[in-house]
Amino acid sequence: MKSAPPIDRLVSALRRLPGIGEKSATRLAFFLLGAPNTLVHELAEAISRLKTEIILCEICFDLTDASPCPICSSSQRDATLVCVVEEPADLAAVERSQRFAGRYHVLGGVLSPIDGVGPEDLRIDQLVQRVQRDGVVEVILATNPTAEGDATARFISDRLSGTDVQMTRIAYGLPLGGDLEYADHATIGLSLENRRGMD
Amino acid sequence: MKSAPPIDRLVSALRRLPGIGEKSATRLAFFLLGAPNTLVHELAEAISRLKTEIILCEICFDLTDASPCPICSSSQRDATLVCVVEEPADLAAVERSQRFAGRYHVLGGVLSPIDGVGPEDLRIDQLVQRVQRDGVVEVILATNPTAEGDATARFISDRLSGTDVQMTRIAYGLPLGGDLEYADHATIGLSLENRRGMD
Repeated sequence: MKSAPPIDRLVSALRRLPGIGEKSATRLAFFLLGAPNTLVHELAEAISRLKTEIILCEICFDLTDASPCPICSSSQRDATLVCVVEEPADLAAVERSQRFAGRYHVLGGVLSPIDGVGPEDLRIDQLVQRVQRDGVVEVILATNPTAEGDATARFISDRLSGTDVQMTRIAYGLPLGGDLEYADHATIGLSLENRRGMD
Repeated sequence: MKSAPPIDRLVSALRRLPGIGEKSATRLAFFLLGAPNTLVHELAEAISRLKTEIILCEICFDLTDASPCPICSSSQRDATLVCVVEEPADLAAVERSQRFAGRYHVLGGVLSPIDGVGPEDLRIDQLVQRVQRDGVVEVILATNPTAEGDATARFISDRLSGTDVQMTRIAYGLPLGGDLEYADHATIGLSLENRRGMD
């Protein structure tokens, strides 16, 4: 015999989220049962509106509810400095560090022959066009410090080698094999400051 | 500059849940962005329907979507054996152990003079009536092994001392100061089997 169906249904749905097992799911469900209606309503609303309201920015390919996104539209952000990241979650992590005043380019992944991901699957052509069109002075390659992230950074560096743009790679302040998405603010800030030229 | 408003809104809502900080909330939000629509829809639906569909069982005071609840309605469950717990989450924990074939009584808390919780704030009168009315043979006091849980068990035992009902307390297989809600199945099962008479 289990809990009432509405509780079981929520526990099942929560268990499908990453890092949430049966006990955490049950604890969250009972917390929500006792929580104020406004919180529960806000959460349900935020989840159900998430997918319908989110589109890709036509310039940087970040997730946004209006294209161009607020960063690409902002005159406060240096359009000649572009930070290239793998995924929107990486962009969010760099933003949280509050140490970067330029703009972004989201690749949508990383080169990975094993998974069948080639250059044509990433937004590399769009980056090259953007660099040529918008007078970008520096491209910071902030792909993750993994074999695939390094290979992708090197590939992009080669693709842009005929242009005047300066290519830099974020410093290896990040732990090797780590993931930008889970790094702390200070480490991300440091690795931006210590970025070095691509050789 | 933050993520798009729909993402920020979800991260804010998720951060108000217990055990979920900014990084977990962000990770969950980006997971949901990439997850199948059906999963996202099911989760939003389960959360929003939770509060409207859940009521209290008129017999045991567990959370349910139909009163009497499935356990109180089931002929498979021994009505003469009643396990008294503090909260619905504790009942769910005992159920998960699959070692108990009786019925339950949810007190709705525990005696706590410091928090101003007296016997009249718990469903103790309803338990006494139930014992007298339904020919209950044994009451297992499964309040948590804390000072308040023990005091509450003792209080209930005193209240029922004039009746024929046998009073037992779950064994201290649970770690002292612990909480039923977070105990593992085996420990809960063991503590039910090793229950002893109230002296």
